[in-house]
Amino acid sequence: MNSNASLISVIHGPNLNLLGTREPEIYGTETLDQINVTLRQEASTLALGIEFLQSNHEGNLVDHLQACRGRVQGIILNAAAYTHTSVAIRDAILSLDNTIPVIEVHLSIPGSRESFRKVNMIEDIVDGRIEGFGSMSYLLALKALSTLVAKRG
Amino acid sequence: MNSNASLISVIHGPNLNLLGTREPEIYGTETLDQINVTLRQEASTLALGIEFLQSNHEGNLVDHLQACRGRVQGIILNAAAYTHTSVAIRDAILSLDNTIPVIEVHLSIPGSRESFRKVNMIEDIVDGRIEGFGSMSYLLALKALSTLVAKRG
Amino acid sequence: MNSNASLISVIHGPNLNLLGTREPEIYGTETLDQINVTLRQEASTLALGIEFLQSNHEGNLVDHLQACRGRVQGIILNAAAYTHTSVAIRDAILSLDNTIPVIEVHLSIPGSRESFRKVNMIEDIVDGRIEGFGSMSYLLALKALSTLVAKRG
Amino acid sequence: MNSNASLISVIHGPNLNLLGTREPEIYGTETLDQINVTLRQEASTLALGIEFLQSNHEGNLVDHLQACRGRVQGIILNAAAYTHTSVAIRDAILSLDNTIPVIEVHLSIPGSRESFRKVNMIEDIVDGRIEGFGSMSYLLALKALSTLVAKRG
Amino acid sequence: MNSNASLISVIHGPNLNLLGTREPEIYGTETLDQINVTLRQEASTLALGIEFLQSNHEGNLVDHLQACRGRVQGIILNAAAYTHTSVAIRDAILSLDNTIPVIEVHLSIPGSRESFRKVNMIEDIVDGRIEGFGSMSYLLALKALSTLVAKRG
Amino acid sequence: MNSNASLISVIHGPNLNLLGTREPEIYGTETLDQINVTLRQEASTLALGIEFLQSNHEGNLVDHLQACRGRVQGIILNAAAYTHTSVAIRDAILSLDNTIPVIEVHLSIPGSRESFRKVNMIEDIVDGRIEGFGSMSYLLALKALSTLVAKRG
Amino acid sequence: MNSNASLISVIHGPNLNLLGTREPEIYGTETLDQINVTLRQEASTLALGIEFLQSNHEGNLVDHLQACRGRVQGIILNAAAYTHTSVAIRDAILSLDNTIPVIEVHLSIPGSRESFRKVNMIEDIVDGRIEGFGSMSYLLALKALSTLVAKRG
Amino acid sequence: MNSNASLISVIHGPNLNLLGTREPEIYGTETLDQINVTLRQEASTLALGIEFLQSNHEGNLVDHLQACRGRVQGIILNAAAYTHTSVAIRDAILSLDNTIPVIEVHLSIPGSRESFRKVNMIEDIVDGRIEGFGSMSYLLALKALSTLVAKRG
Amino acid sequence: MNSNASLISVIHGPNLNLLGTREPEIYGTETLDQINVTLRQEASTLALGIEFLQSNHEGNLVDHLQACRGRVQGIILNAAAYTHTSVAIRDAILSLDNTIPVIEVHLSIPGSRESFRKVNMIEDIVDGRIEGFGSMSYLLALKALSTLVAKRG
Amino acid sequence: MNSNASLISVIHGPNLNLLGTREPEIYGTETLDQINVTLRQEASTLALGIEFLQSNHEGNLVDHLQACRGRVQGIILNAAAYTHTSVAIRDAILSLDNTIPVIEVHLSIPGSRESFRKVNMIEDIVDGRIEGFGSMSYLLALKALSTLVAKRG
Amino acid sequence: MNSNASLISVIHGPNLNLLGTREPEIYGTETLDQINVTLRQEASTLALGIEFLQSNHEGNLVDHLQACRGRVQGIILNAAAYTHTSVAIRDAILSLDNTIPVIEVHLSIPGSRESFRKVNMIEDIVDGRIEGFGSMSYLLALKALSTLVAKRG
Amino acid sequence: MNSNASLISVIHGPNLNLLGTREPEIYGTETLDQINVTLRQEASTLALGIEFLQSNHEGNLVDHLQACRGRVQGIILNAAAYTHTSVAIRDAILSLDNTIPVIEVHLSIPGSRESFRKVNMIEDIVDGRIEGFGSMSYLLALKALSTLVAKRG
Repeated sequence: MNSNASLISVIHGPNLNLLGTREPEIYGTETLDQINVTLRQEASTLALGIEFLQSNHEGNLVDHLQACRGRVQGIILNAAAYTHTSVAIRDAILSLDNTIPVIEVHLSIPGSRESFRKVNMIEDIVDGRIEGFGSMSYLLALKALSTLVAKRG
Repeated sequence: MNSNASLISVIHGPNLNLLGTREPEIYGTETLDQINVTLRQEASTLALGIEFLQSNHEGNLVDHLQACRGRVQGIILNAAAYTHTSVAIRDAILSLDNTIPVIEVHLSIPGSRESFRKVNMIEDIVDGRIEGFGSMSYLLALKALSTLVAKRG
Repeated sequence: MNSNASLISVIHGPNLNLLGTREPEIYGTETLDQINVTLRQEASTLALGIEFLQSNHEGNLVDHLQACRGRVQGIILNAAAYTHTSVAIRDAILSLDNTIPVIEVHLSIPGSRESFRKVNMIEDIVDGRIEGFGSMSYLLALKALSTLVAKRG
Repeated sequence: MNSNASLISVIHGPNLNLLGTREPEIYGTETLDQINVTLRQEASTLALGIEFLQSNHEGNLVDHLQACRGRVQGIILNAAAYTHTSVAIRDAILSLDNTIPVIEVHLSIPGSRESFRKVNMIEDIVDGRIEGFGSMSYLLALKALSTLVAKRG
Repeated sequence: MNSNASLISVIHGPNLNLLGTREPEIYGTETLDQINVTLRQEASTLALGIEFLQSNHEGNLVDHLQACRGRVQGIILNAAAYTHTSVAIRDAILSLDNTIPVIEVHLSIPGSRESFRKVNMIEDIVDGRIEGFGSMSYLLALKALSTLVAKRG
Repeated sequence: MNSNASLISVIHGPNLNLLGTREPEIYGTETLDQINVTLRQEASTLALGIEFLQSNHEGNLVDHLQACRGRVQGIILNAAAYTHTSVAIRDAILSLDNTIPVIEVHLSIPGSRESFRKVNMIEDIVDGRIEGFGSMSYLLALKALSTLVAKRG
Repeated sequence: MNSNASLISVIHGPNLNLLGTREPEIYGTETLDQINVTLRQEASTLALGIEFLQSNHEGNLVDHLQACRGRVQGIILNAAAYTHTSVAIRDAILSLDNTIPVIEVHLSIPGSRESFRKVNMIEDIVDGRIEGFGSMSYLLALKALSTLVAKRG
Repeated sequence: MNSNASLISVIHGPNLNLLGTREPEIYGTETLDQINVTLRQEASTLALGIEFLQSNHEGNLVDHLQACRGRVQGIILNAAAYTHTSVAIRDAILSLDNTIPVIEVHLSIPGSRESFRKVNMIEDIVDGRIEGFGSMSYLLALKALSTLVAKRG
Repeated sequence: MNSNASLISVIHGPNLNLLGTREPEIYGTETLDQINVTLRQEASTLALGIEFLQSNHEGNLVDHLQACRGRVQGIILNAAAYTHTSVAIRDAILSLDNTIPVIEVHLSIPGSRESFRKVNMIEDIVDGRIEGFGSMSYLLALKALSTLVAKRG
Repeated sequence: MNSNASLISVIHGPNLNLLGTREPEIYGTETLDQINVTLRQEASTLALGIEFLQSNHEGNLVDHLQACRGRVQGIILNAAAYTHTSVAIRDAILSLDNTIPVIEVHLSIPGSRESFRKVNMIEDIVDGRIEGFGSMSYLLALKALSTLVAKRG
Repeated sequence: MNSNASLISVIHGPNLNLLGTREPEIYGTETLDQINVTLRQEASTLALGIEFLQSNHEGNLVDHLQACRGRVQGIILNAAAYTHTSVAIRDAILSLDNTIPVIEVHLSIPGSRESFRKVNMIEDIVDGRIEGFGSMSYLLALKALSTLVAKRG
Repeated sequence: MNSNASLISVIHGPNLNLLGTREPEIYGTETLDQINVTLRQEASTLALGIEFLQSNHEGNLVDHLQACRGRVQGIILNAAAYTHTSVAIRDAILSLDNTIPVIEVHLSIPGSRESFRKVNMIEDIVDGRIEGFGSMSYLLALKALSTLVAKRG
């Protein structure tokens, strides 16, 4: 892909680094690295650049979201546990001033799990939400971003 | 598409028949018919059959969901207002006994609107959820269903 | 039964038409038609007339409840999903002005299911409630009505 | 009245068809037909056209509200039971894009009855509310609409 | 109007003395005095006596409501801010023992504003409620009272 | 009845010993003894053994429920006031490990009385519920148990 | 006092038997026996008979309240902890059918202690309430009962 | 009574000036003046000075409570409606720094009326509470104060 | 200070007139007069005019806030108890149409006291808030207003 | 153990007498007697006296807790169901005036079961809490008490 | 400033590093560095030492608060998003044992924004609060600290 | 201890590093290092390996919990402040798939402190809970783990 390609930042929140190594009967045996490889291939097909971050630290996620401004053209965010508790991540997204589309993704549907997962600190400020499709949630988000980025282009 | 193609039922809930004719600054000028045409083209590309229902009547939506059993291979449901109030539609989905994947879609993100739209009677029993992408929500759902149907195939 | 026999109206709410065809491990293999046949036999034994309505449409249930006035002597109502949401059905029952005894029945015990099923829009205005006995709930209601109708007689 | 007269649509929700035939000690002996006759006379006096709809079906009310757009100049809506539960009717009103004034009326004061009637799904989006005056609530609404329509005229 | 005419007391609550001088884009440029003049004219047409009170003091409103007993034949009350907080005004209305019809009016619709305005301390004990019509709310209330007073006559 | 007959334990909770001696306009003049006599006759007809316990002591009811295990084949429980507050009785029922069907009965419908009676500590763990039929609630429960016991037989 | 004197039953709930022996800095050093002696003296002065019960058992309190009917002319009840949790005691008071005045007393003011003590299961069905005066609460209740009993005389 | 007698201030809140003139079937025909006369006689018997204030104005009640400091030895307060809403009166009582015993009285039992009357802004900071005895509530409070004042003496 | 100086109105709510005379261990021995003297000196230093109002009457505070319009250039408001309950004061502030900056001050931090003090009727409509510094809260507000007024200059 | 040994009272609440006889897959096959034997052995090792009480009666538990004062040196309390509902047991513990350490134990973790078990009436007044270890919860409590008693020694 | 000067630690929470670069129409164009420069100048004027920390990491803020003990004489804390969620920061402040005054500042008024910002985890344990003045909030806090530190001297 | 000994990981959450240096009257003068020394000694006695982590960073705690899998045989977790807010730590524990027993400990009883500490994000997924015993809570947990690890052995 050429140097003018739009760059997509994929941000994985806490405990997602364990994908494929725990509860395989639920989450499958696909690891986070394998998901990222698939996403990189799809990005290539869509002529998009792509980068990845995983962290268990709320502060790192905030730092990274801030660093996206003026540098990337789209964000795929699976904030995992912090989805339900982090005002700091919400504020980091708000600080982007709608300059970058942000797609929220989840592997499962939080609303089908414990009741505290019905609290969502970011759903009202993201540009789209995709949940429940396992790793395909990321792929669908990438396809959607491809269109959104092109429109903004 | 041949007669063995999987059939997808796209179900539009109340007031969606007005798309394109109201609040164009928000919802755009695309009509429901135009959305359906686009979906039919995409279905053709994916070698899927497709059918459409729109109704403002909760009972009609229940009737139709019941009638999907053993006849269609995937459902895309935008229950609109009934998303937040209908136990009957929930029960109709439950009555499918997980024989058909159901994808919930919304044009906007209900969680970013009035607080009563945070109540969702079906989110915990559908197979996936896509919201906030306008008519592209349907397209993404169709792509997702294509994969899900193939897997079940 | 002679033409002077009291008439009982049995009203089945949304999704009950699917009885026997779904989740047989929970609801058994008895269909709604079979339940109605059993009820008709029991009504005959009790020298009662009997009629049946099933609808997935809240409005139909309201229409029918209104049409019971002055025509039937007892009502067995399984409002199913609408039990938890319908003010309209409540108002239709209220409009009977206590001229007809109304027995609320459920196959299972709503209070043992999702928390939103603890909301009941009619329990405080019916004459009796029977729940949890499967199709026997209807039979017990019919026996109870037989006595109640005789008393009013 | 001449063909250029503004048209007012009066929409009666569920169970209002029973007016005059039930609980006469509360609601009086005036029937819905009689109320409509009085309204028609008053409309004539005010040089307004008038039409009436009553339905127990939420979907019918949504259909009719949609059909008002571009055809009528004012709406008097007594949504009765659906006032407290219907997001669909709310959305139908919203879909009018403020092109038609909508007056909410009630015969009694819902806030003086059961606590669930304090939930009102439309009060924040209508143009005026009149409640507690029995059938006179409609008459006052008609007078108010006469003025509002003239102002918009 | 002759000395036997019924007397209507119009009670304006806190901050209503500022009408016409603030937020003219919302409340218009009509002052409270102008509203009162219009009401006096309409009262004259209806052969009713009329008097006015405005106060920012809850205690004054209570005093005045008490003083209405046996002296006036109808009350139009816009308690404004105290609508949402005053048990004392509620008790003053209750102390009238239903000897005088009380109509609650509001210029706007409180339910469409801040959530604390959904608390209403008097709605369940007044005889009618009119809200959202600006100063016309008072006029409609006066017309309604004219009828109610005549009926009680 | 022969010695192999199934035994039903009827358990009356607090204040039910006063039946027939208080509020006869509500509860009628039938005493608890008379109810028990009627139940004994019906049990005889159904070829069931029957025993009775009434206590105002929560601990006694727990003791007795424990003592039912392996000794009786069905339980009719009107826990009265303790229905709404007793975790201990709930735990006693749970301790039966579903070896004995338990039918909850009430003379009136708790949901139509004070709001605290909507809390029910046992409804989700009993096998059936019958309420609102006065003493006939017990009779219907006995008939239902007869069938349930036979099925388990 | 002669045999025709009215009899007052003073009922002390759980843990009140410990008065004077615990937390003397709060409750003082006066024992329950001493309180009873003082009450007996005052009763004598007022020409009233008096009896006492203390129990830590909810069931005993219910039994005793039932046994008051037709035997005593007034009840002073300090239900202590059970004030906040016992529906059974509420029902026992209700079963008296207002034939005997019941005065609720507390040594301290429950509303000034833990928040769960703001729940009161009997306050809306007793004839009067006195709280916060230490043992004088009982004395004031006795004086009040003396008047109430005389009025009913 | 001599000039050294303790002075008791009896404070009547809003709408209590109407006692005896409204709802006589509930509140009796005794006027506030008559209650005050009776209290003055009892005060004389108890060798206490007494003064009275009634006001419908929250501010007046606050002013008066402040003015009690260092001047009166006991307060009987029936704050009526303001009991449930006034933080200002609470703060005025707090400002007395426990130098004067304050007894809260009510004619009826607020907890047996509308649910908003269960909110009590002062119950946790007064020295005693008496409610439900009609005008006798005041008399009992005066007797109690007589003892409390003597103790503080 | 010359006649062109900006005028600041300092408004003290209920019970603040008692400062220095009560609970000196908490609020210190500084009286309201002394605070006002200090504020007057600081205002002089800042070349600002200053005026003071204290009232225990909600209505007076509303009257005064209304009277500030077009006359003063800044407001320091310690609404004390009315902070938590007064919609009327909120509406009076709103009626200023943002023509005058309003600073909310408190001596202590309401959020550290009783839970009902967490309700604040004005915090979302004032221009700044300072709390917890004792009388220095006023001084800081005056300094802040000096800057704000200069900016608006 | 000599007569000077500290005495520990182990109190088992309702339904614990059934341990080992019900739900063995959850609670194991160890009976309450076997647990007590193990505890007695451990107490002997720790040179502590030990006694046991099990009751299904709230009143008995209150009686026994009261009787511990001045007689035992430590309490292990598994109040079971009453943990969640009993103010009376709370008050009995409070009446010990902190003279005896009280350890709360549970076999399972109440917070992992039904939501009503999250209400705990005693957790804030006991000296320590151990839960989730099955019968080892008691053993750990005994070891802890051994240390606590020695410290108080 | 000499080496004996008191040291003030200014702590900026998450996303504050972006000040001046985002939403300039709301937050202005002043950067955090510029704010710090202004504060340093003011500190110099007040003869105070000053230091700054900004972090997006909750743990860093906790670490730093702990490190203030015995080293700095005053803290200005804008915890930003963590204000609403962090028990850890609360505990870090508590761990200072009131040895250092802590002033909470905010640029805007959290109570005027989303409802979840009304939850404040530290307001009840700080020494003062200043909010709504933009960067002047910090300056006012510094002035206040100057006085508080001098008092503690 | 030999190289085959089971390894226990003791995890101390935020602010626990300050133990012994703050609030010694509450938490004692024992430092975290001293507690760890004691635990190491006890582990040696029990033939267990032991390791320690303390961090104020939620992310570090998550990282460490993840790193325990397959490496340690038991976990003692005092998540301190994060107990009440961290979904991320909950998810990290869940990710262990029940392969390692986790004991939750607290020095004090959170339920006896501020109400927000009643929210516990992990209590329903740990294997046991010990709280209120100060540093002995850890010792008891270690003893319990010793048994649990042996059982799993």
